[in-house]
Amino acid sequence: MFEFSLTARSGRARTGLLLTPHGEVQTPLFMPVGTLGSVKGISPQELQEIGSQIILGNTYHLLLRPGPERVQRLGGLHGFAAYPGPWLTDSGGFQVMSLGHLRRISEEGVVFQSHLNGDLIELSPEKSVWVQEALGADILMAFDECPPYPASREYMRDSIERTLRWLERCLRAKTRPDQALFAIAQGGVDLELRRLSTEATARFDTPGYAIGGLAVGEPKEGMYPAVELSTRLLPERKPRYLMGVGHPEDLVASVGLGVDMFDCVYPTRTGRFGYALVPEGRMNLKLSKHLDDPNPIDPGCDCYTCQHFSRAYLSHLVRAEEMLGLRMLSLHNLRYLHRLMESARAAIQAQAYGEFAQDFAGKRFGPEVPEWFRKALQAGGHWA
Amino acid sequence: MFEFSLTARSGRARTGLLLTPHGEVQTPLFMPVGTLGSVKGISPQELQEIGSQIILGNTYHLLLRPGPERVQRLGGLHGFAAYPGPWLTDSGGFQVMSLGHLRRISEEGVVFQSHLNGDLIELSPEKSVWVQEALGADILMAFDECPPYPASREYMRDSIERTLRWLERCLRAKTRPDQALFAIAQGGVDLELRRLSTEATARFDTPGYAIGGLAVGEPKEGMYPAVELSTRLLPERKPRYLMGVGHPEDLVASVGLGVDMFDCVYPTRTGRFGYALVPEGRMNLKLSKHLDDPNPIDPGCDCYTCQHFSRAYLSHLVRAEEMLGLRMLSLHNLRYLHRLMESARAAIQAQAYGEFAQDFAGKRFGPEVPEWFRKALQAGGHWA
Repeated sequence: MFEFSLTARSGRARTGLLLTPHGEVQTPLFMPVGTLGSVKGISPQELQEIGSQIILGNTYHLLLRPGPERVQRLGGLHGFAAYPGPWLTDSGGFQVMSLGHLRRISEEGVVFQSHLNGDLIELSPEKSVWVQEALGADILMAFDECPPYPASREYMRDSIERTLRWLERCLRAKTRPDQALFAIAQGGVDLELRRLSTEATARFDTPGYAIGGLAVGEPKEGMYPAVELSTRLLPERKPRYLMGVGHPEDLVASVGLGVDMFDCVYPTRTGRFGYALVPEGRMNLKLSKHLDDPNPIDPGCDCYTCQHFSRAYLSHLVRAEEMLGLRMLSLHNLRYLHRLMESARAAIQAQAYGEFAQDFAGKRFGPEVPEWFRKALQAGGHWA
Repeated sequence: MFEFSLTARSGRARTGLLLTPHGEVQTPLFMPVGTLGSVKGISPQELQEIGSQIILGNTYHLLLRPGPERVQRLGGLHGFAAYPGPWLTDSGGFQVMSLGHLRRISEEGVVFQSHLNGDLIELSPEKSVWVQEALGADILMAFDECPPYPASREYMRDSIERTLRWLERCLRAKTRPDQALFAIAQGGVDLELRRLSTEATARFDTPGYAIGGLAVGEPKEGMYPAVELSTRLLPERKPRYLMGVGHPEDLVASVGLGVDMFDCVYPTRTGRFGYALVPEGRMNLKLSKHLDDPNPIDPGCDCYTCQHFSRAYLSHLVRAEEMLGLRMLSLHNLRYLHRLMESARAAIQAQAYGEFAQDFAGKRFGPEVPEWFRKALQAGGHWA
C-alpha cells in the first residue's frame, strides 16, 4: 500500500516512485498547499492539469474549520475537497507556534488559543494523529515542536528530546494501516544537534522522514550544511521531505543533495501579491512597465495563463485587484514549480543534474552565483 | 456582418439569431459582465464551457483602467482579454451617474471625477463612441442619461430629449462599419414619457434597441408596464436589450414580453457574497446548516461546481472566504442563468413558453405567485 523505490541517481540527487493508496507519485516533487482544503483559487481539475501529484492540508486550520469529524463524515479530504489523488497533512504543530496564540507547551502537548475566536484548544501527539486519521490523508506527519530561530542550545536539546518522545507517542496512537506516518527531525542549524535529532529519528524506521526546523529565518549559509548533513544521515531508501521550502533556487539546491519532497505557500501567495515565477526570479506584474507588453509571462511555459494572456492583461488585472489575475498567477507559479521538478527528474534520469543545476543558476543568478548555492551543488557532486 | 433573424415565437416571447463579426448568438440570452475586461474570477475557457455567448465590458471602468488606446493596441477586448467571441460595451453613462462623482451634466456631455483618483474626466456622445470604437466590441451602446428613480417629470422630459440629441451625435461620430450601435430608450416608469422616448428612439432605425432606465429602484408594478409598452413599440425585427436586469424571475417575465438580451452583475456578485442561484431562489451557503450536507447545490445542474462539490465543502469555503468558493459559486450562478435561457429558448421553439414560465413560477414562488409576475406573463400571452 505504501512503497518507495529509487529509479535513478545523478550525484546525490535521485528520482523515485512513491506508491500511496490514492496513486503513485514521482519524486522529486513539489506539493501545493491546500490550507483549508483548497489550494487558494485553484480547482482540483486544474491541479491535475498542471501536474500536481500530492496536496498538503493543514491540520491546524482544518481542526478549527470545518473540524475533523465533519471532514471524515464527508469522505475525508479526498471526498470532501474533491481532489481524488494523494494528500499529506502536517501535524498542526508548526501553525500552533506561528499562528495560534500559544498558551503552554508541556510534556503532554500544547494548549493554544484559536486565531479565529480565542477558543482554548489542546493539541498533543495523540490528538494530532486522531485529527489526521479523521482527515484521512495518505501521509501523516508526526507531531513535533519546531523551535523558533534563533533558540538557545539548551532549549533546542530539550525540544529535540521531547519531539522524539512525541514521535513514539504518535506511532503508538496511530491505528489506520492505510496511512503512512513520516517522522520529523529537528535541530535547527546546529550540526551537532541536527545529527543527534536525525540519527535518533531515523531509528524509528518510519516510511519517510521530514527535515524540519529549516527555512524559518536562518541564513542560507546555515541552512544548507544542515540539509546536507540530514540527507547524509537519513536512510537511502526512504523519501526525504524538506518542509516549508518552495523557492525555486532552494528546490534545485536541495534536490541536488538528495531531497525528494517539498511544500510551500510561496507560489500561490506570491501570485496573489502579483508576482510571477520566471527563470530569472520573480516578475512583478504590478509594475506599469508591463502594461503595454503583449508577450506572455514566459513564452516557454505551457500553462493556461501563458497560453492565453499577455503580461499587459495580467498586469491590468493585478493592478485592479481582479480575482482572475490572482488566480492566473497562482496557476502559473504552481506550474512553474511542477515543470522545474519535471526537468529535474529528467536531468537525474539522464545523469545530468549538474548541467541542469548550472543552467538554472545561469538564468537565475547570472554570473554571480551565490556561494551557498554553489557549495550545496558541490556537496551534491554536481559542481566542480 | 450584423443581422438579426427571428426563429420562433410563443406568445410575445421569441427566439432569434444574432450574427456579429465574432460569431452568432442565440436569443434570448444573458450576458455576463466583464467590468474591467474579466468576468470576476472566471476564465474565458470557462465562459465558453458554460454557454456564455457574449460578454459585456464597462466603458467607464475600461476608460479609467487600462485606457482605451492601450486596449486597442493590444487587439481590442477580443485580443486583450483573450475572449474571442462577441463583446458588447455600454456607453459609460450609467457608471458616471452611479460611481463617478458627477460634477456637471450639460448639453455637451458630462464631467466627472474618477472614483479611483479624483481626476476630472469628460464623457460625451463623441468621446463615448471613440472609446467604444477603441475597445472594439461588436455592439456599442449609445451615450445616454439614465435619470435616478424617482425624478421629476420635467427633468425626465428634458433628459429624454437630450438623450435623443446625444443619440444623433453618437451615430454621426461612429466610424467603424464592423460595429453595431444600439440606441437606448428611457422614460422611467411614466408610460407617457416611456412612449415618447421609445417611439422617437425607434425612428433612428439602429440595428438594436435597449430598454434603459429600469431596475433602478422602482417597484416591479411600475417596471413591467414599462417593459410591456417598450416591446410593443419597438420594431419586431430588431433585438431588444433590457439593461442591468439579471434576477431569474425578471428574465422569465421579460422574455415572455419579447425581450431578447439581458446583462447584470447579479450572478457573479451574489456568488461572491456566498449565494447560489437555485430554482427556489437563492441558497445562502454561509448558513451553518449546509456544513454537513453532502449534496451538490443543484443535482440537476451540469456545471463543474455541481458536478464536483458538496454544499458542505462550498459552505466551508465561503465561510472561510476562500477564493475557490467565490469562484465556484460565480460559475454556478452564470451557468444557472445560461441554462434558464436555454430552457426558455427550447420552450419558445416548442410554442410552450407559458408552461415553462408557470413551471418556473411554481418552483420559484410556490402557490403565491406575485401579481406583477402573473400580469407580465398574461400580457405576454402565457397565462390565462
